[in-house]
Amino acid sequence: MQQLPKIGLLAVSMALICHTYSPLQPIQSSIGFAVLGYLLSDYLIPATAPYFIKIGLFGKDLSKKDKPVIPETIGIIPAVVYLFIMFSFIPFMFFKFLVVDTSGGGSRDTGVDLETADSNYFPHNKLSSYLSGILSLESMVLLGLLDDLFDIRWRHKFFLPAIAAIPLLIVYYVDFGVTHILIPTFIKNIFGFEAVSIDLGALYYGYMAAVAIFCPNSINILAGINGLEVGQSVVLAVLLLLNDFCYLIPASLRSTPAYETHLMSTCILVPFLGVSLSLLKFNWYPAKVFVGDTFCYFSGMVFAFVGISGHFSKTLLLFFLPQIFNFVYSIPQLFGLVECPRHRLPRFNEEDNMMYPSHAVFKKRLPKLIEKGMLILEALGLLEVVKEEMKTDNKTEIIIKECSNFTLINLVLVWFGPMREDRLCFVILLLQFSIGLISLVARHTIAALLFGYDNLSIFNLSILSSN
Amino acid sequence: MQQLPKIGLLAVSMALICHTYSPLQPIQSSIGFAVLGYLLSDYLIPATAPYFIKIGLFGKDLSKKDKPVIPETIGIIPAVVYLFIMFSFIPFMFFKFLVVDTSGGGSRDTGVDLETADSNYFPHNKLSSYLSGILSLESMVLLGLLDDLFDIRWRHKFFLPAIAAIPLLIVYYVDFGVTHILIPTFIKNIFGFEAVSIDLGALYYGYMAAVAIFCPNSINILAGINGLEVGQSVVLAVLLLLNDFCYLIPASLRSTPAYETHLMSTCILVPFLGVSLSLLKFNWYPAKVFVGDTFCYFSGMVFAFVGISGHFSKTLLLFFLPQIFNFVYSIPQLFGLVECPRHRLPRFNEEDNMMYPSHAVFKKRLPKLIEKGMLILEALGLLEVVKEEMKTDNKTEIIIKECSNFTLINLVLVWFGPMREDRLCFVILLLQFSIGLISLVARHTIAALLFGYDNLSIFNLSILSSN
Repeated sequence: MQQLPKIGLLAVSMALICHTYSPLQPIQSSIGFAVLGYLLSDYLIPATAPYFIKIGLFGKDLSKKDKPVIPETIGIIPAVVYLFIMFSFIPFMFFKFLVVDTSGGGSRDTGVDLETADSNYFPHNKLSSYLSGILSLESMVLLGLLDDLFDIRWRHKFFLPAIAAIPLLIVYYVDFGVTHILIPTFIKNIFGFEAVSIDLGALYYGYMAAVAIFCPNSINILAGINGLEVGQSVVLAVLLLLNDFCYLIPASLRSTPAYETHLMSTCILVPFLGVSLSLLKFNWYPAKVFVGDTFCYFSGMVFAFVGISGHFSKTLLLFFLPQIFNFVYSIPQLFGLVECPRHRLPRFNEEDNMMYPSHAVFKKRLPKLIEKGMLILEALGLLEVVKEEMKTDNKTEIIIKECSNFTLINLVLVWFGPMREDRLCFVILLLQFSIGLISLVARHTIAALLFGYDNLSIFNLSILSSN
Repeated sequence: MQQLPKIGLLAVSMALICHTYSPLQPIQSSIGFAVLGYLLSDYLIPATAPYFIKIGLFGKDLSKKDKPVIPETIGIIPAVVYLFIMFSFIPFMFFKFLVVDTSGGGSRDTGVDLETADSNYFPHNKLSSYLSGILSLESMVLLGLLDDLFDIRWRHKFFLPAIAAIPLLIVYYVDFGVTHILIPTFIKNIFGFEAVSIDLGALYYGYMAAVAIFCPNSINILAGINGLEVGQSVVLAVLLLLNDFCYLIPASLRSTPAYETHLMSTCILVPFLGVSLSLLKFNWYPAKVFVGDTFCYFSGMVFAFVGISGHFSKTLLLFFLPQIFNFVYSIPQLFGLVECPRHRLPRFNEEDNMMYPSHAVFKKRLPKLIEKGMLILEALGLLEVVKEEMKTDNKTEIIIKECSNFTLINLVLVWFGPMREDRLCFVILLLQFSIGLISLVARHTIAALLFGYDNLSIFNLSILSSN
């Protein structure tokens, strides 16, 4: 009896996947695959978790009273489930083209293509773009797993996403090759440019590689409390889906390149949401599994994939604002300006079961410039410092003894006071969602002012592609 | 000074890769990448091997006097190197199309395509086929690694290659979809068929999945002595390359589909040979590393990929004759007709450092039918048995006490007597190469008789594609 709801869900997912003549294709199938992915992952995670502990992939949860041993690297399960779902999704993604072109049985459709040359031909370039994205994702999962197994050094692992992104960038190069970016109207006016876009050439590939490096690593850095890695990935996916819907819902945008692009983005994100929610269920406070670097890399690469292949990497970065803030804010400790303890997790207090901001304690006096910087941050409400007044001769000097560690998690605790771990995670996720929602509105209003038009208009991508 | 030859090789590889205007493109680049792959893998294997032991991936070499501890699963290194080489190879594979079509900078080449519709358009379907093959390979490597880590049960791991082959089969379905096979002339004559080919439909996908399951598993079964897994993969790759050259060398075959198909096969196999040779160097007797299931799966899938995407899976299976024999020969033990000891490796004799056939010892009397079968095999020289004559009443009965284990490795020892491990491996590889060479000649002479023509003629594939 307990299995009844699951069997019902399975039936629903199959119905959604197989009812291919629906006007909502391929989104309807992708929802079906999301449900299937959720069920598969939900079955496999508890079934395989003990084997992870057996082969030594486990860690202690330091923010609990009894410091339980918890299986690590479980993110590999939803990641592998996702990959095989996305393989199976291919015929449904391209269903309308299959019916038109390959029903003849055995005839290569490129032959059909040249004869009947209409807009309904099989979109080989879309298929290559899709396959290259999945290849990058799978490479990321493979490298992430190797990282979790061998504990690759920080300065090496930072670049793993760039290696994994190679298929995506190379297929972009051979198959699409657009390296133009639009010039904002105000810059055109100031410098008197006539062109609407500028060709960045090879630099554009450097930019895309940087996006691919940033997304996975920034998720990996904003981590350390139960549910945060998966939670932020779920929030990011929801925000990107909201952005996609802006292009999918207005009927006037049908049959534009922007529609196709955001349709693919939706089809990639919906199943990702399915497998991530199953992982979140087990990773939420009190966590029964840890996700590992594998999951952070995997989810970051999903976002890089949709952003790069869909040409909205700037919008993507808007939704990453909290991650960008966290990275910039971490710089003083990451680059050694301020002493960086081995762990910067918030401090767990066993007595009240709450999380407190953790502190870096300075044994030696800090350089004056850094102390001044810290005092400015404190005045801005961006740092908690413990200081001491010292009277020498005839003046009073302030010496900084401790400061809260430079992470967004600690900062949230500084702002809102001590909280239990699940509440802390929830507040950060709410922050991410609110900032993302504001960015989304801003992006579709201010962008129109800066660039002279917004790409919610049907003219936008046709201008790009005519260049 | 010791590094000089390697630096020289690196320079050679770079020159081969980058000299893209050569008439030998893309084979020349693939040779360059093979050299690069050899060097990379040759550097990474000894550099990473100690870390494999550290995380518990090691095994004891039981066929040595001191039973040394040896790192296991090292096959993941050449496999990952191969994958990333094949990513980087994409622009060189399609170089001639890039120069023609995407030099305009930023224009999608499908647009160019429809206007200039000549034979020189960018081959998107070749790119998708290539990407799907690499995806299947990478999935196989990922699943192989999970198998090596978690020691998946035999009855589950047997089907892992079919799961990994999904991208290959699905892209075959959406993009190519030919499910016809040719009917041999003599069958046509007997049954009075008029068609030259028959459409197998969905059955053809079952057949391709079976090929994908067979190749990796058959390599995994013919294993157990130093160098054999990699050695047979190298021999198979060389045989397939010889078959490819039959189509690449005759000038009359240029610009036929068969030429293009075997060009791609060559480009896939040459870098595989590069990385495999570096692994063979460390895995050859006395082995410094073990390759793991990862490598067997990986190499088997490389062969399945070229066979399936190149439409010569029957020729491929010809070269697998020793593996097919080994599998069929193993059936009595695999399916429990004859007792199967936990290890069927040949027996190592510490005194003379030689390998002897290992035996299955029977505690109970075997069923009469099985004893009779064994005696027939013995008479055919296909089994070594230890028997005992027993006189009951007035007739003499023969009881079988022991028999050599049913593997090709043991059979070779039965045929040629005890040998040292490296010599044994060499003899098996020589056997494989000889049988393959005979098959190759037979395939291009007898096939012409059976099918009415050989596909070394330019008509062959055009007949197929016109159906």
